[in-house]
Amino acid sequence: MPDTMREIVEELALANRILGNENVIDAFGHVSIRHPKDPSRYLLARSRSPLIVEPDDILEFTLDSAPVVPPTVRLYSERVIHGEIYKARSDVMAVCHHHAPAVMPYCISGTPIVPVFHVGGAIGAEIPFWDQHDEFGDTNLLVVKPEEGRSLARALGSHSVVLMKRHGATVVGASLRELVSRSIYLCWNAEHQFRAAMLGTPQPLHPGEVELAGAINVKTTAAERTWEYWSARLKLAGLWPPPLSAKASRGAPAKSARAAPRAAGKKRRRRR
Amino acid sequence: MPDTMREIVEELALANRILGNENVIDAFGHVSIRHPKDPSRYLLARSRSPLIVEPDDILEFTLDSAPVVPPTVRLYSERVIHGEIYKARSDVMAVCHHHAPAVMPYCISGTPIVPVFHVGGAIGAEIPFWDQHDEFGDTNLLVVKPEEGRSLARALGSHSVVLMKRHGATVVGASLRELVSRSIYLCWNAEHQFRAAMLGTPQPLHPGEVELAGAINVKTTAAERTWEYWSARLKLAGLWPPPLSAKASRGAPAKSARAAPRAAGKKRRRRR
Amino acid sequence: MPDTMREIVEELALANRILGNENVIDAFGHVSIRHPKDPSRYLLARSRSPLIVEPDDILEFTLDSAPVVPPTVRLYSERVIHGEIYKARSDVMAVCHHHAPAVMPYCISGTPIVPVFHVGGAIGAEIPFWDQHDEFGDTNLLVVKPEEGRSLARALGSHSVVLMKRHGATVVGASLRELVSRSIYLCWNAEHQFRAAMLGTPQPLHPGEVELAGAINVKTTAAERTWEYWSARLKLAGLWPPPLSAKASRGAPAKSARAAPRAAGKKRRRRR
Amino acid sequence: MPDTMREIVEELALANRILGNENVIDAFGHVSIRHPKDPSRYLLARSRSPLIVEPDDILEFTLDSAPVVPPTVRLYSERVIHGEIYKARSDVMAVCHHHAPAVMPYCISGTPIVPVFHVGGAIGAEIPFWDQHDEFGDTNLLVVKPEEGRSLARALGSHSVVLMKRHGATVVGASLRELVSRSIYLCWNAEHQFRAAMLGTPQPLHPGEVELAGAINVKTTAAERTWEYWSARLKLAGLWPPPLSAKASRGAPAKSARAAPRAAGKKRRRRR
Repeated sequence: MPDTMREIVEELALANRILGNENVIDAFGHVSIRHPKDPSRYLLARSRSPLIVEPDDILEFTLDSAPVVPPTVRLYSERVIHGEIYKARSDVMAVCHHHAPAVMPYCISGTPIVPVFHVGGAIGAEIPFWDQHDEFGDTNLLVVKPEEGRSLARALGSHSVVLMKRHGATVVGASLRELVSRSIYLCWNAEHQFRAAMLGTPQPLHPGEVELAGAINVKTTAAERTWEYWSARLKLAGLWPPPLSAKASRGAPAKSARAAPRAAGKKRRRRR
Repeated sequence: MPDTMREIVEELALANRILGNENVIDAFGHVSIRHPKDPSRYLLARSRSPLIVEPDDILEFTLDSAPVVPPTVRLYSERVIHGEIYKARSDVMAVCHHHAPAVMPYCISGTPIVPVFHVGGAIGAEIPFWDQHDEFGDTNLLVVKPEEGRSLARALGSHSVVLMKRHGATVVGASLRELVSRSIYLCWNAEHQFRAAMLGTPQPLHPGEVELAGAINVKTTAAERTWEYWSARLKLAGLWPPPLSAKASRGAPAKSARAAPRAAGKKRRRRR
Repeated sequence: MPDTMREIVEELALANRILGNENVIDAFGHVSIRHPKDPSRYLLARSRSPLIVEPDDILEFTLDSAPVVPPTVRLYSERVIHGEIYKARSDVMAVCHHHAPAVMPYCISGTPIVPVFHVGGAIGAEIPFWDQHDEFGDTNLLVVKPEEGRSLARALGSHSVVLMKRHGATVVGASLRELVSRSIYLCWNAEHQFRAAMLGTPQPLHPGEVELAGAINVKTTAAERTWEYWSARLKLAGLWPPPLSAKASRGAPAKSARAAPRAAGKKRRRRR
Repeated sequence: MPDTMREIVEELALANRILGNENVIDAFGHVSIRHPKDPSRYLLARSRSPLIVEPDDILEFTLDSAPVVPPTVRLYSERVIHGEIYKARSDVMAVCHHHAPAVMPYCISGTPIVPVFHVGGAIGAEIPFWDQHDEFGDTNLLVVKPEEGRSLARALGSHSVVLMKRHGATVVGASLRELVSRSIYLCWNAEHQFRAAMLGTPQPLHPGEVELAGAINVKTTAAERTWEYWSARLKLAGLWPPPLSAKASRGAPAKSARAAPRAAGKKRRRRR
C-alpha cells in the first residue's frame, strides 16, 4: 500500500494504466481518487488516455472540480462526475468513468446487468440506469455541468455502479484497489452474462450470495493476488514503469560509450 | 499538426498504420488525403497493406486517379473511390475505404448502422447503402471504373459514410484526423450496436443528440487525446516509426546476400 | 517428462503459466498435482495468479489440505477442492479449478457442455453440474470447507470435469499433461459449441466417437505436439522461463534504492 | 517466388507459420505442397505445430503418404488427407487441413458456408460436407486410413474446400500462396457470415460475382500485398525468421562464459 504522496500518485498512474490494459478504459474515460489527506479535494490526470498517464500528469481538484493550481495543460471535460460523487458520497474514495466494450450493449439496449458469478458479486445486487436526456434533453451526452454531475450522483445513490444510457458507466469504490477490481469484474460479469443470455437464461446469484460474495475482492489474499496479476500483465505489455518525466530523463548523463547503449536500451524498454 | 509536405506525408503514413493497428483496415483497404496545396490532386500509397505503408510509398494522383509521375510500383486498383469522391465533395479532405470486421455483418445482412453512443455520433444520423450490382450487374465487386466510383460517390451524397453491400465501407472526413477518428468509431459503434442487438433492441441517439455528439471527436481535447493514444499503441506494437525509407536503406550497400537481411534485422530491432 | 522433484516442480510452474497464457485461468483459479512419491500429499502454489507462479512458489499439502511445512506465505482458500478430489479419486494425479470465459456461460445458464469435435472428446460423454447452494445455502460460493470439497468431489463422481453453477469448473487428469490438455480443449469445445448454437443446433459426437476420440490427446504424438506448442507460445509471450527464485534474487543485495529497480528491469529484459 | 529446393522448403515453413499466426491452424492441422519437380511426391512437416515448423522439419512423401527416407522423427497421423487428394486432383499443388475456430461452428451445426463478400469469393460457390461416420461408423475422427482419405477426396470433388463434420476443414490450392490466401479468407468469410446471421439474413454473392471475385486473390497486386502483409505480421510477432536448425546452432561454439549468454541473447532476439 502506498504511503507518501509520491507513492499515492504513482499508484493512481498505475491504476490508470491497468484499467487501460484490461480493456476497461480506452482513449476516453478517467479514474480519480479522493485526496488521502484532504477529503475536500480529489486527484485526477490531465486530459490524457489512461493507458499512458504518468505520475506527473496527476493534478489536484476541489470538489467543485476546479484545478487547485491554474493549469498549463488541458483538463478532462467531464470532471464533475468525480467532484459531484465525492460530494454526495463521503464513503467513496475512488471513481472511474468508462465506456468499456463489455458494458456498452447494456447501456444501449437498456438490459440490466445483474451479478452472475461469485467475483461479480462486487457490483452489488442492483445497478441503476441514468439517462441524461430525461432531465437535460438533447446534449452531446458529455457530463460537463455541475447539475448534470449531481443528477448522475443522485441516480448512483448508494449503489456501486451506475449505467449511463447511450454513454457508458461510472463505478465507485471505498479504495482505489477496490475500484479497480470492481471495474474489471463489472466487465467480466457483463461479458459472462451476455454470453449466458445467448445460450439460455442467465441465473443470477441468490440475494444472500451477492452480499457474501461481494466481499471476496477486498479480502487480503484476493486483493493482493489481483493487483500483482494486473501489474504483471502491464509490465509484460511494456506499459510499466512509465517513462521518467522528460525533465528527469534529460538530467541523467550517460557516463561512457559502454554506458550509452545500455542507456539506449533502457530508454527503448521504457518506451515499449 | 504537420506543416511541410514531408510532415504531411509522414502523417498520412502514420494514419495508414493506425488504421491497420486499430482493426479498421487489414491486408486490403486504403486511405488518402486531398493534396493540401492543390485541391485537384490527392495523395495515396502505392499498392501496399496500410499497416506497413511508409512515407516513401505515398504517391500523388490527379482527381481522375492517374498518377502524376509515371509509376515504377504497383497501384491500388480501386483508386477511383478516392478520386471520384474528391470531385463530388469539395468539403472532403480525406477518404478511407475498408472492410473492417465490425462493419461487414451490416454490409452482408443489409442491417443499417445507426449511432448508438455519444462518440458514435460522428458517423452521422444516417448511413446509406450502395450495391454495385444494382447498376453494374455481375462484377468482382472491386470499384475500378470511373463510373463505378461516381455511382458510389452519388450514394454517399452528403453523408460521412457509405456501406457497400457484400464489400465494405467508405468513410470521408474534413481532415485526416477526423477521418481516422470517424473510421475507428464507426467500427466501435457497429460493434456496440451488434452486441446490443443480441441482448435486446438497440436504442439509437436522439436526433438532436447525434448533431451535438457528432462534434465531440474534432474538439481539441478529444482529437489530441485519441491521436496520442492511437500513436502510442502503434509504438507499443513495434509499428512506429517505420523503417528508414527504401532509398536510404538501399543507400547502405549490403556486403553480401547473407549480410543484407541481418542489417535489416538490426535496424528493425533498434526501433523496438 | 520430468524426473527429479525439482523438474516436477518446474513442470507444475510451467503448467500454471500455460493455463494462464491459454485463457483458462486468470487472476484466480489454481492447478495441483498429486505428490509423485507420496500419494497422500499434493503440490500446489502459494496464493498467486498461475500466470506468474514460479517453481519456488510450490508448496506441499496433506490430503486434508494442510500445509506440510508451516507456511510463511498466503495460501489459496479453496485448497479443499484439490484435497477432497485426491481422496475420492485414486486415479486422479492432477486437478485444475478455473473460471474460464469459455465455460462461464454454461455455468450461468445451466446449459450442458457436450463433446462437439474430435479433440473435445477428452472431456468425456457427460459433464455434471454442481450447485453449492443446493446443500449449503447462501455462501460466497468459494469452496473452503472440507464438506464443500467432498460434496463437489461427489458431484464429479467418475467424470473428468464438473461445472460449478455461478462459479466455474473443476477438471481432473491422470497426469499433469492430460489435465492441461483437457482443460484447454474443454474451453475450445465450449467455445465451438457456443458458436454452433448461435448458428443452428450443435450436433455432438456419436457415443462411440467420444470414447475413441477421448484418447487422442494423450497419444504420444498429440501430447508432445501440444506441449511444445503451448510452451513455445509462453516463451513468445515473454513468460518463460520465469525470473530466478525469490531466494536467489533476494541473495543479490540491492546497492541502493535506485539500483534495485534497474537490476530487476535487467533481469526481466534478459528473459524476454 | 521461390526457386531452389531450399527456397521452396523455406516458403513452406513460412506458410506453416503464417497459417498458425493468422488463427487458421493451432496446435494441430498441417499444410503441404506437391513436390515441384516430382508430381508423385509431396512435402510436409514432421509432426509439429505449424506455428513453429522450421525448414529442416520438412520431409518428402510418396502419394501413398509413405516417407521417402525412413524417418527418425514422428509423423502426422493424417497424412493420407494430403496424399489421396494429390492422387485425385492433378490440378492441386497445395493442401491445408485445419480446425480453425471460425469454421468449427459450421462443421458442428451443419450450416453451409457461402461466399458473402468479394474476397470470400475465393472459396467457390459451394462447399460440400463430409461426415466420416457415414461410411466408417464410429472412429476417433482422425483421417488415417487410405480409404478414409479417398472418401474425403471424393467428397471434395472439384471444389476448393470440404467441411468435415465434428472435425474441421480441408482446403486446396493451385499454388501454395493461393492455398494460404484461400484458407485465411475462408475463415474471414465464415466469421463475417456468422455475425451477419446474428444480425439478420446473410445475402451471399450473386453466382456471377462468385466467379469474378474468386480470381481477386491470385491477381498479382492482391497476392503480393497479402503475402507481404502476413509475413510482416509474422515478423512482428517474433515468429520469423525461425531459429537456425539445431545442428547449425550447436555448431557455433561459445568462445567464453561471458560470450555465451550474449550469443544466446542475440539468437533469441533475432528470432523475435
